[in-house]
Order: sequence, then C-alpha cells, then structure tokens
Amino acid sequence: MHEKITFGYVMIGNDIYELAKALWDVPRSITGDGVRRTLSTIKELCPELTTYEVPSGQKVFDWEVPLEWNIKDAYVEDPDGNRIVDFKQNNLHVMGYSTPIDTFVSLEELLLHTYTQEDRVNAIPYVTSYYEPKWGFCMSEVLKRSLKRGKYRVYIDASLEPGFLTYGEILLEGEEKEEVLISTYICHPSLGNNELSGPCLTAFLSRWLSNNVNRRYTYRIVFLPETIGSIAYLSRNVHHLKKYVIAGFNVTCVGDENAYSFLPSRLGNTYADKVAKNTLDHLVKEYRSYSYLDRGSDERQYCSPGVDLPVVSIMRSKYGEYPEYHTSDDNLEFITPKGLEGAFNAISSAIYTIENDHYPKYRVLCEPQLGKRGLYPNTGQKGKYSKAELLTHILAYSDGKHSILDISDILNVSFREVYENCQTLLESDLIEYLSLLPPVQRGKKYE
Amino acid sequence: MHEKITFGYVMIGNDIYELAKALWDVPRSITGDGVRRTLSTIKELCPELTTYEVPSGQKVFDWEVPLEWNIKDAYVEDPDGNRIVDFKQNNLHVMGYSTPIDTFVSLEELLLHTYTQEDRVNAIPYVTSYYEPKWGFCMSEVLKRSLKRGKYRVYIDASLEPGFLTYGEILLEGEEKEEVLISTYICHPSLGNNELSGPCLTAFLSRWLSNNVNRRYTYRIVFLPETIGSIAYLSRNVHHLKKYVIAGFNVTCVGDENAYSFLPSRLGNTYADKVAKNTLDHLVKEYRSYSYLDRGSDERQYCSPGVDLPVVSIMRSKYGEYPEYHTSDDNLEFITPKGLEGAFNAISSAIYTIENDHYPKYRVLCEPQLGKRGLYPNTGQKGKYSKAELLTHILAYSDGKHSILDISDILNVSFREVYENCQTLLESDLIEYLSLLPPVQRGKKYE
Amino acid sequence: MHEKITFGYVMIGNDIYELAKALWDVPRSITGDGVRRTLSTIKELCPELTTYEVPSGQKVFDWEVPLEWNIKDAYVEDPDGNRIVDFKQNNLHVMGYSTPIDTFVSLEELLLHTYTQEDRVNAIPYVTSYYEPKWGFCMSEVLKRSLKRGKYRVYIDASLEPGFLTYGEILLEGEEKEEVLISTYICHPSLGNNELSGPCLTAFLSRWLSNNVNRRYTYRIVFLPETIGSIAYLSRNVHHLKKYVIAGFNVTCVGDENAYSFLPSRLGNTYADKVAKNTLDHLVKEYRSYSYLDRGSDERQYCSPGVDLPVVSIMRSKYGEYPEYHTSDDNLEFITPKGLEGAFNAISSAIYTIENDHYPKYRVLCEPQLGKRGLYPNTGQKGKYSKAELLTHILAYSDGKHSILDISDILNVSFREVYENCQTLLESDLIEYLSLLPPVQRGKKYE
Repeated sequence: MHEKITFGYVMIGNDIYELAKALWDVPRSITGDGVRRTLSTIKELCPELTTYEVPSGQKVFDWEVPLEWNIKDAYVEDPDGNRIVDFKQNNLHVMGYSTPIDTFVSLEELLLHTYTQEDRVNAIPYVTSYYEPKWGFCMSEVLKRSLKRGKYRVYIDASLEPGFLTYGEILLEGEEKEEVLISTYICHPSLGNNELSGPCLTAFLSRWLSNNVNRRYTYRIVFLPETIGSIAYLSRNVHHLKKYVIAGFNVTCVGDENAYSFLPSRLGNTYADKVAKNTLDHLVKEYRSYSYLDRGSDERQYCSPGVDLPVVSIMRSKYGEYPEYHTSDDNLEFITPKGLEGAFNAISSAIYTIENDHYPKYRVLCEPQLGKRGLYPNTGQKGKYSKAELLTHILAYSDGKHSILDISDILNVSFREVYENCQTLLESDLIEYLSLLPPVQRGKKYE
Repeated sequence: MHEKITFGYVMIGNDIYELAKALWDVPRSITGDGVRRTLSTIKELCPELTTYEVPSGQKVFDWEVPLEWNIKDAYVEDPDGNRIVDFKQNNLHVMGYSTPIDTFVSLEELLLHTYTQEDRVNAIPYVTSYYEPKWGFCMSEVLKRSLKRGKYRVYIDASLEPGFLTYGEILLEGEEKEEVLISTYICHPSLGNNELSGPCLTAFLSRWLSNNVNRRYTYRIVFLPETIGSIAYLSRNVHHLKKYVIAGFNVTCVGDENAYSFLPSRLGNTYADKVAKNTLDHLVKEYRSYSYLDRGSDERQYCSPGVDLPVVSIMRSKYGEYPEYHTSDDNLEFITPKGLEGAFNAISSAIYTIENDHYPKYRVLCEPQLGKRGLYPNTGQKGKYSKAELLTHILAYSDGKHSILDISDILNVSFREVYENCQTLLESDLIEYLSLLPPVQRGKKYE
Repeated sequence: MHEKITFGYVMIGNDIYELAKALWDVPRSITGDGVRRTLSTIKELCPELTTYEVPSGQKVFDWEVPLEWNIKDAYVEDPDGNRIVDFKQNNLHVMGYSTPIDTFVSLEELLLHTYTQEDRVNAIPYVTSYYEPKWGFCMSEVLKRSLKRGKYRVYIDASLEPGFLTYGEILLEGEEKEEVLISTYICHPSLGNNELSGPCLTAFLSRWLSNNVNRRYTYRIVFLPETIGSIAYLSRNVHHLKKYVIAGFNVTCVGDENAYSFLPSRLGNTYADKVAKNTLDHLVKEYRSYSYLDRGSDERQYCSPGVDLPVVSIMRSKYGEYPEYHTSDDNLEFITPKGLEGAFNAISSAIYTIENDHYPKYRVLCEPQLGKRGLYPNTGQKGKYSKAELLTHILAYSDGKHSILDISDILNVSFREVYENCQTLLESDLIEYLSLLPPVQRGKKYE
C-alpha cells in the first residue's frame, strides 16, 4: 500500500502570489468577461479546466441567473472637470452590477449614489447590487468629505444584457469514485485575501493533485461566482455530489499572514471537520475555530438542508473579521507569498490525510516482539524508547475500529507521523489496512 | 398554521394575589372541609373544575387514605387563664392532624407536645403528624421560653373520622389527545409561597388556557393534597397519564420575588426539562438549577420508577431553600403580586413553547433569494442584516430534524422570536411544519 | 439474597509484609528456579495453586519462550582482589539473563558491561537483557566512578539452557461461570513495590476469596512472569477468558504509602473501570488517574486488540512514576504493612462491589410509605431525615436500569452504603434484584 499523494512541495507561495498579481486588474463580477478572462488564465496553468456557461434567466432552485454585466469604463468628474473617481485606477470605484449612466448630477444626487467606509476613511469599499438595478460609485470617506457643490459628470459605460454565468470545473479522477470537492470563487474584482487568494491557491492545489497520478480519490475542483454560482452548480450536480463527496473544502481568505481560521460544516461532525481540525491542531500554533453561525461563503449552499455536503473552510484571516475586509486595503500588500504558502500547506496537509487514512488492524494477539524485528532495544533499562512507544501505542488502537486519523487524535501526534509509523508496521506485516468504513466514505456524521 | 395560545396577559399578579388573600384563613390539611372550601372558591373562577372524593381506608398503591380531619377550635391557656396560643389567631398553632384534647397539663407535659423553630425564634413552625395519632401545638421559641411552671389548659376541638380525601380536576380538551399535566397542592394552611401561591397561580393558568379555545394540546389541571393526593390520583389515572402526557409542571413555590428555580424530572432529559430550561434561559437573568436529588414535592410521585411522567418545576424560591419556609413568616408579605406575575409569565411561556413547537422543514435546496421576497436588502455592502441573518440561520437548521425549540437553543434566541420568524418563513412557503416526532410527543427521553 | 463476600479483614498488612520478607532474596527472573521457589512458598499459603510449565522454544503468538536462566553466583573483583560487586549481597548486581563469564577484563571493557543510574548515584539499577545474549553488572554510579585502571575479575556462574517458563494459577469456583481475573507477576528479583508487593498481596487476596465460600463469581488468579508470561498464558486461555471474564485486575505496585493510582483498560469504559473508579472515589482522599497511554504492565497484553479483556490496575505509586522505581531503593523499607493494607483494602473493596452489584427494581408505584415500615419518622417537621432520604433516593433510581453501582455514582455515596440500604429495601419487599445485564456480565463496553 503506497503512500497516496506525495507530501511536501517547494516554495509555492511565490508562484501563487504571481498568479494573483497577473489576475489583479481583471474586472470580475458574478458574470461577464472578467470571469472568462480569469478562467482562461487559470486554464493556462490547469489544462484540465472546462468552462461552463449557464444562460441568463435560467431558474436555479430559488434563484434566476441574472443578466450578464460587462463594464468598459467609468468615472466621476468634478465641477472643475477633474476626474476624481476613475474605474481604470481601481475597479472597486464602481458598484458591482451598476446600470450604465452618462449625465450631470448635483452633489446632492451624487451623494445618494456614493458609498464609503466610514470607519476606514481612506479606503474604497467594495459594494454590489446584483438584484436591484442601481448605479453607484465607491470612494474614500476622505474624498467624499472634500466634495464641493456643483455639477458632477457621472459616466458608467456598462452593459446588463442577456448572457451567461460562467464557471470552471476540473475533474481529476482517482482510484475511487468517491470525491473530494474543492470550491473557490472568482467573482471579486481587485481584492486580495477575499478573494483573489482562493482561486489562485486552488489553481496550484489542482496542479499538485494533477501531478500526483496515484490519487486515491477523485477531485472535483470548481471555480465559480459566489452564491449564485454555487447554487447554479448545485442545481446541475447535487445528486452526484451527494452520492460521492466524502469531504469538501471551500477555499477562501487564504492569503494573509495574520491568522489561521476554521469554519465547520453545518453539522460540525463530518469527516471533513475532523480532518481539518486535526490538521490545524498539529500544523499551526493556534487558530480560531468559528461556529457555523459565523458562516458567510459557499458552505451556505453546500451545507444547506437537503444538500448536506461535508464542506469546511480552512482559512487565514476570515472574511468579515479583519478591518481591511471588502475594502481597497485588502490588496496585494495585504496578501503575501508566505501567507499563501501557509494556507496551501494546511489545505494540502488535510488532503494528504484524507488520501492516506485507513483503519489499521493488528494481525496478531498480544503485543508483538518488536525486538526481533529490530524495532525495540532488547536491554530493558529504565528510559525512553519513544519510537517503540509510538509503535506500541499505534498497535494498541489498531483494532480495525480506529482510523489513523482517530489514533492521531488519541495520541496527539500528527497524522503524518502516525501514518509513517503505520507504514512501518504494515511492512512488518503487523497490521493490515481495512477500507474506510461506509459512514466515513459518504462524509456522513462521523462518530 | 395559526399560533397556538395567545401570548401575553395583562397584569395578572394582582388577581392571583387577591385569590391568595381570600383563601388565606381557610384551615387546609390533606383532608377535610378546608380543602373543600378551597376547591369551591377556585371553582368560582374555573367552572370546569370537578371535585372527586376518595374514601378513608382506600388502598392507593403502598398507602391508605387516612381518616378525614376537621378542626373547629384550639387553644392553650396559661396558669393565669390567658389564652397564649389560639388557633383562631393563626392556624399554624395546631399541629396538622392533631387528635382532640381537652384537659389540664403540667408545663413539662405541654413542652412534650410543643414545636418551635429554634433558628427563627419569633416564627411559628408548620408541623403535621398525618400517620401517627398525636396532638401538638406550634409556637414561637420566644413564647416557649417565657412559659412558667403551672397547669395549662390544652384544648383541641378536632375530629378524625372516616370521610374522604378531596381533590379537584380540570380537563381542557385540545386538538390533540396528547396532554400537558399541571399539578398543584391544596393541603397547606396559612402559608404563602409554599403553598398558597401554587393553587392560586394554577387557577389563573387554567383561566388563561380556557380562554385560548384553539389549544393544540389537552390540559389536565389537578389541585390535590401533596403526596397522598398525588398518589391517590395516580392510582386512578396512571395508565392514561403514561399514555398521553407529553410534559408536566408541578406548580409550587411561585409567589416570592427573591429567585427563580428549576427542578428537573428524574431522568432530566425529557421534553418538559428542555422546554423549562429554554424558557428560563431567555426569560430571566439568572435562575438556580437544582438536581432531582433536591426534589421534595409531587415530582416524587410523578417521576417515580414505573410512573415516569415528564414532570418538572419552575419555581421562585424553592421549598426548603429560604429561611421563611414552613413557618409563619412564609406569609402574605413574603409573596407579592410581582413575584406571582413573574412565575405566571415563566410557566405560561413554557406552555406557549409547547403549543407552538414544530419541526420546520425547508422546502427548497440552497439558500433562498430573500431579496425577491422583500426579506433582504439587495445592496451587498458590509454591515449587519440581523433580520436576514436570523431567517437564514433558522433555515439552515430547518432540516426536519431540529425543532423550533432546538433552533432556539442553537441560536441562543428566545423561542418566541424564532417561532415568529418561522411563521414568516411559513407564510413565504419557504418551510413547512412537520409534526413533532413520536419520542417528543410521548414525553420520553429527548435526545 | 445474602451478601456476597464478607467485607472487612483484620490487619492483613503485616502478614503480606512478612511474606515479602520471606521471598525477598529469591533470585527471580522470567524463568528459572527462583520463580519455582516463589510459587512454592505461595502454595504453602494457597494450596489451590497449580503450577504450569511452558517449554523453551514454544511459540506463543508473536513470541517464543526463551531459554531457562539460572544463576548460582556472580561477582567482580578489583585489581587488588577486593570483591567490589557481589550477587550474594544484592541480586540486582547482575543484569537479568546475563550469559556466564569467568575472565579478567580491563577497566575499559568492564565499563562497557556496567549499568548505573546516573540520576540516583547510590542506587543499583535493575537491568535485564532477555532477548539479546549479553553479560553485565549493575552498580551504583558512585562505585563506578571510584574504579581504577587495572585488571578486573568478572565472574557469572549462570546457565541459559532449554527448560521451562513457570507460572501458577488458582481457580476458585463461584455460583456463576463468569470470572474475575486477578493477575500479578513474579519475575522481579529483590524489588519491593515493583514487584514483590503484587504477588504477596495477591496471595492474601486469594486466601480471603477462598475463605468466602459463597462466592458469586469464579476467580482466576494467576502468578506469572510479566509480558512473556501473560502472553504464554493468553496463548493457552484467551478464548475461555474472552468468554467468561467480566472484570480483571492487574495487581502491581501495591506496597508503598505515597499515593494511590488508577490505570484504566484500553477502552476505558468497561465494568472494571467503573468499579475501580467508584471504589477509589469513596475509599481514598485522592488518587492519580492515568491514561491507557501511561500503561506499562500486563494490561498491555490483556487489553490488546482482539484480546480485549476488561483489565485495570488499582495501585499505590505507579511504576515509572517514583524515583526509587527499578533500583535497589525500591526495597523493604520503601514498602510498608500500612501501604500494603491500603492497597488490599482498595482491591478487595472493588471485588466486594462486583460480588454485590445488582439492578434493583422497585416493586410498587409511587413512593412507599416508609413510616408504616418503621423507616421514616411520621412527624413532618422541617429537618434532615438522612436515612429516609437515602432510602428514597435509592428507590428513585431503582428502575431496573440503574445498578447499585450506578446509584452509588449518582448519589455520591459509597457502594457499600448504598448496597446495605438496598438490602434493607429488599427485606422490606420494596425492591427485587434483577440479574446484571448481559453487557456487564461480559465485561463489554459499559454505557
């Protein structure tokens, strides 16, 4: 039984960061050419990516795919003709899904269409209005306060027309039909942690998984607009996913260096929850464990009643929990190669655990004689034989009812260390591996 | 699906208190005309009340209904002819179930029949001897210490003769055959919190329930003497109660303002326990949660092995836990309209919860578009949409396996607020209500 | 239903200590005449003891019974001819299972075969080499440091030849076929707490059980060499033991006065675990509760996967946890009659619990009238009727689903006190005893 998925990678943080830089200026939203350009860039790295288009007006559960939005240019000129707000300087300046406009307005009317972040006066906030036709500009509170009375030119060259919602999917088949779902979103414009970090890191996760040709499980990796995208995706795939997904990761907010965070699935006790907590317990010094009541990303769809996929999030600073969130300060300075690398390390470790987890079963009765196998010093002097202790502790729980992951939790030793010692025991014929039990394979409640 | 039981009432504390004043001087015991007069007064408020008589000598499980006790007068005169103890001044002065006597005794002999409260020297204690024929007087420790040598006239004009044990029952039928049991006791003479508060509050609970003609459940409300009364009642009704009672409340010590208290059922995890704890969690700032080992009222019978009814107590200051308990200081000054009103509020809130609890089931897959239903602002700016958050949190757990009560516990939001939002979701066709599951309907262990 | 096993004994600590003194100098190891002499001395006290011999070379699960080791003499003489190390002074001086030697060696070579305890410079360590042929001497660090250059005479008159591994077994039949297993080991030479205390105390446990002719359960008491002995024993008896053993005690480290300790079974929730914890909770002021990860004695075999016997250890100072452990300082001064008596008291109390545990079932509905049975004062004055409270508390949980042991845990009252009150209730026909339920009888997971 060979190790599934090679552990470790070399300095991937810089590569992920470079991808984020390349995608930075693309004006993404939940539909439109910005999404297509983003997917096209990712496809250069991940040729397995297939792009799907869902037409405007299509019913997807309780929702309807909206019109496609594309924007070419937008600005505000002050009464003196100075371009004080310019979409080409920062695509956050235009409210997402703004209707087009080209007119002069008074300061009073402009302010009715102006959004600022009062508790962060120099930042441009990120605002959208997907389902109510409106136009609007976002600017810093400082700029807003400096505006004088007079006529302002407001110009938004955008289109809202029947089109498509675009998403990308990569399917990497493994030995098993059971799947691990990895989902991230591509609807945020120039924002760093939330959210260029997610699709950029996920692209490199996909490359890493693609290079591991001995995959045990099948990987389904999706890049889609948040909420409407995952709903549209589920409306097409929910029955398949419910049947095959044993664990899922929603990849978001994986770019900064300030924190590690965990958001559980709705029921909180799926195999994915157990894997993620074990991974963070051993990988990082501390992390913040949130409640499902703190959710705010696509687990809202994946974990909703009746869908019930075992999807969790391993994050750095969680959306909504850092002051730069959803402002122009969540930028390429806020995310770093080191921050991205740490998140990649955590998520890939969780996948390593899933790939290599089994139920070891001891093949002998009573403890084995480790000494004759060269695994134990024969001289019984008082002391610490930690290697032998670890082997005997693992054997003590190798009853076919505790998985390697369970044993890692019991011993408070990292999964990888337990797994590597299990491999030693497997080579010595002291244990055999049972398949994972059905409740785990189906990602159901794990007890 | 309409709301069951109208919530809220207007300033009921004063009405309850007035009833307590009207019943104050009636010389109650476990049998006798004092009980009948008490029930008769309650029947004026609650015409549905039926009175039952169980004859002396009747076997009721391990017990036998005792002789009926009636008392007309009693006093002690000192050697100078002063009436130092007088039943007409305070009916606690005579030990309950005293045998008649009319003679002169020495101080020494009088003291053998005298009961005082040594740790509360000005109070008259409440003492009874139901099953051993004795006579006795209760007085303050201060009075006892002042007694001089000499002949004392002792006079008790009481009768102990074959008669009946009397109890009252109100049956208010609902849509369902399943019942909520409300039990209180009417055997205490002039005592306030323990126990005129119980029957007085229960009479007004009955009126409130009677006025709510759309009751979901059937209510069985009993006024009986403690212990022997509940045993006699169970001996006649245990099979019916075991079949139909889904929750029960023993109403006692509901009159003072000093505390709120909760006493669980024997198993501690019935639907009644869950409802009562949730109610107190959200209604009062703090309350004291007792163990079943602290029990001391009719839950001793209702929860006994083989009977196993899901009966709990929501109280103010619990019997045995306040210094005035079972003395003349537990009087009409100790209980207050405000204290009674608080307890009525708590118990009626618990009943409101039972009446309106269901298992909501979400009818759609993925989150709904609250915006198109006017339930969510469309502009996705960073902020707090607490109404929408609450609705989505409720939907997240509306999987048909969590009741509204469960969701109230999970969200730490009052049952009523969760229920009212469920009604909004019901009106929007986003959820349906499932019946309560069998284990809950039967009041069995709730997991 | 009579009490099983008479509780109490008289001052047994001195007798156990005298046995330890008598067995002190016998040179025990995992095989050899020292083991046989030890068993022979125990048989004088326990005539039911049968001795078994397992031949060298016999395969026992993953192991093979080693050659038999016997030793007559051993010493080291310094260059001046002084006998600086002498087996006859202390049998720890020779490494257990040393090969024979008779030669002169340089100081350098002697030091390669010398073992000391660096953190306890005056003590001789206890060292063995059962499965690698080596010779060695153990001495104090102080002595080692004083050695000068020169030729040393090293002399070990020992034999390693085909022979037998010897163990003893006592079978005391009871009314039931279900068994309690008591295991201790006889392979340590002159060491006190770990381990002459175990076999000496166990011999007296056996006498006490033998004198109790009304035993409910069958007792299987084994004296064997640690590890290889319990493995050899299990290889012959595992199927029988798995079928019949409901609880087991590994008796080790039961001689000093410094502490009480508890080591659980592998799964931690067997009937034996519950009994042992309840016993220590009520018998001693405090004790240290270890994890199965701290194990180090024959529970390693008895609890191994597939064997799964419910075996726990009630100890004084646990092996490996006191500074004198496995050195010449763990001697007859370290163990005391008082220390041995305390451990005997604890283990015999645990056995008393197992013998007398039942599922009491209340035979009446509602509380009984304790008064008419003379169990309750009739005068209901406020106060504490602790005897009656205890009886009613016991009855409240006598539902046929809680054992006497469960009730002891719930009430936080010692098993013996609950049991004695159950006997009162049994005599009053208020309860009956149900058999222990199958999961408990089989020593399986106890929930």
